[in-house]
Amino acid sequence: MIELYVLGSGSSIPNFKRFSPAQYLKIEGKNILIDCGEGTQIQLQRFGLSILNIDYILISHLHGDHFFGLFGLISSMLLLGRIKPLTIYANENLIPILDNVFQDKLSGTYFPYTFVSLSYDGINKLTENNKFEVYSFPLDHSTPTCGFAIKEKLRPRNISKKFVEQYNPSIEDIKAIKQGADYFDKNTKKLFKNEDITIDPPQPFSYVYCSDSAFKLYDFEEIKRPEYIFIESTFLNDKSDIARSKKHMTATQAAQLANNLNAKNLIMGHFSAEYRDTCLFLLEASKIFPVDHIIIAYDGLKISYDNYKKAKKI
Amino acid sequence: MIELYVLGSGSSIPNFKRFSPAQYLKIEGKNILIDCGEGTQIQLQRFGLSILNIDYILISHLHGDHFFGLFGLISSMLLLGRIKPLTIYANENLIPILDNVFQDKLSGTYFPYTFVSLSYDGINKLTENNKFEVYSFPLDHSTPTCGFAIKEKLRPRNISKKFVEQYNPSIEDIKAIKQGADYFDKNTKKLFKNEDITIDPPQPFSYVYCSDSAFKLYDFEEIKRPEYIFIESTFLNDKSDIARSKKHMTATQAAQLANNLNAKNLIMGHFSAEYRDTCLFLLEASKIFPVDHIIIAYDGLKISYDNYKKAKKI
Repeated sequence: MIELYVLGSGSSIPNFKRFSPAQYLKIEGKNILIDCGEGTQIQLQRFGLSILNIDYILISHLHGDHFFGLFGLISSMLLLGRIKPLTIYANENLIPILDNVFQDKLSGTYFPYTFVSLSYDGINKLTENNKFEVYSFPLDHSTPTCGFAIKEKLRPRNISKKFVEQYNPSIEDIKAIKQGADYFDKNTKKLFKNEDITIDPPQPFSYVYCSDSAFKLYDFEEIKRPEYIFIESTFLNDKSDIARSKKHMTATQAAQLANNLNAKNLIMGHFSAEYRDTCLFLLEASKIFPVDHIIIAYDGLKISYDNYKKAKKI
Repeated sequence: MIELYVLGSGSSIPNFKRFSPAQYLKIEGKNILIDCGEGTQIQLQRFGLSILNIDYILISHLHGDHFFGLFGLISSMLLLGRIKPLTIYANENLIPILDNVFQDKLSGTYFPYTFVSLSYDGINKLTENNKFEVYSFPLDHSTPTCGFAIKEKLRPRNISKKFVEQYNPSIEDIKAIKQGADYFDKNTKKLFKNEDITIDPPQPFSYVYCSDSAFKLYDFEEIKRPEYIFIESTFLNDKSDIARSKKHMTATQAAQLANNLNAKNLIMGHFSAEYRDTCLFLLEASKIFPVDHIIIAYDGLKISYDNYKKAKKI
């Protein structure tokens, strides 16, 4: 089960209804915080998530609305006696800021803490384990900014339960079949072609997060065909000039980008506080992207995704 | 009319119900923000207060829960094109932190910004105008910490309207009478003693803010007999050992201090998040301080005070 929470769906000036950007992704036993606007620790508590469980923090860029929540979050981690290691991926200019605020408190005396500086030259793998990979890729904003992609790895093929019960292959054989091998049954002298006893594994889940950026098309294979994509939609099309000058996107552009990347579902957010009715974002985007696959983000939006359930049974 | 708002009534680890410490005092056309925990700009908006109107920010000490909201607040002031001057009173160690976060943006290119370092040697007048004075005084916490007192100045004496109508004194004479002079009426050759034609002005309002501190008694005349006093009450008496070791106060101690300073009304707050029922703070304090003069702070508490209305009419 994968769970995505939108903690803050607002933009540069937060309010009680829409906090500044922050999202939380639970995937394969790991917990990833993406951006950390002011009040993120309050929202984590509000939506029943523990600040002590976060494994990775990805900060897209150093505009205040995307990282000012780090101070309070880290401070509370220290107060609560966190011992779990934490890795922060962000622009290197964050290092002196954190050092200045926390002095020697992040030197490792408290919890193991790693800082990884983002680079902006194409797509980069930030981390991986045997279940998923995390990538960054450069966006086009007024300060160095990255988008992020979190991709499950392709799982082994699904083997037929009926076949296993009937022919009782060894564990080694099962492993080989799951990797695509055929099977020869010694008792019956029968050869089973792999495609007859397995089916494709579930489609790996992938999530792409495009924070603040001007409209731009991308050709990175790693971010194509995501199950969900979040794209900032600060303005509507009537303010496309302002969007361009401030290097933000309109709802139309967000939908175009989602289409271009063949995303299945588009989550829109980062709405400018000047818009009272976010339905207008849905209306505008739905002219380009299928309306029943558009989600208007709000604080507390939770998306649960179970690709096992969605996969065919054999 | 004087208005006090509690924006955040919580303590070190904020939550959606109780944000970190921040209060807002409207007095004689000036707006004073006292402490600025994470999310203060959200609370200001929530309770209908403009972040652009703040004249002074007083930061009691540099524990994160008392100043991490400054980053977002100042950032929004910059985004909204603030031009009104701002003065921040805080520990000098805040200067490099703000410089680091805002780089050259606070150099005066944007809005006139003044930083005043607090000192910790007795009571100090931070600022005054013809209506009120602001003082700081040292508290006893684990980092240099100040409490604050905002005191209205004594107004001129109230002169009888009936007397003015009947004897038509000159403007100069009225000014002298309001300062305490007697009046000789040339026409009737009658001498009016000051006490017969004036009454005392309304009692000047004063507010004292005691943020994080161990229990300690104070002998500063400037903080005695406040109309309202806020005193941190992080713990109940059953945790007096923890309170002592962490240099915080219990509800009992807050009530003792309020009594000692002859405060009229005690506002209690900064409750540790571990307490679910803040009624217990009221119960404990009411054994020492009159229960109908105790106010349990909550986010959004607003106290309006009109000392003209309270004053006797002549």
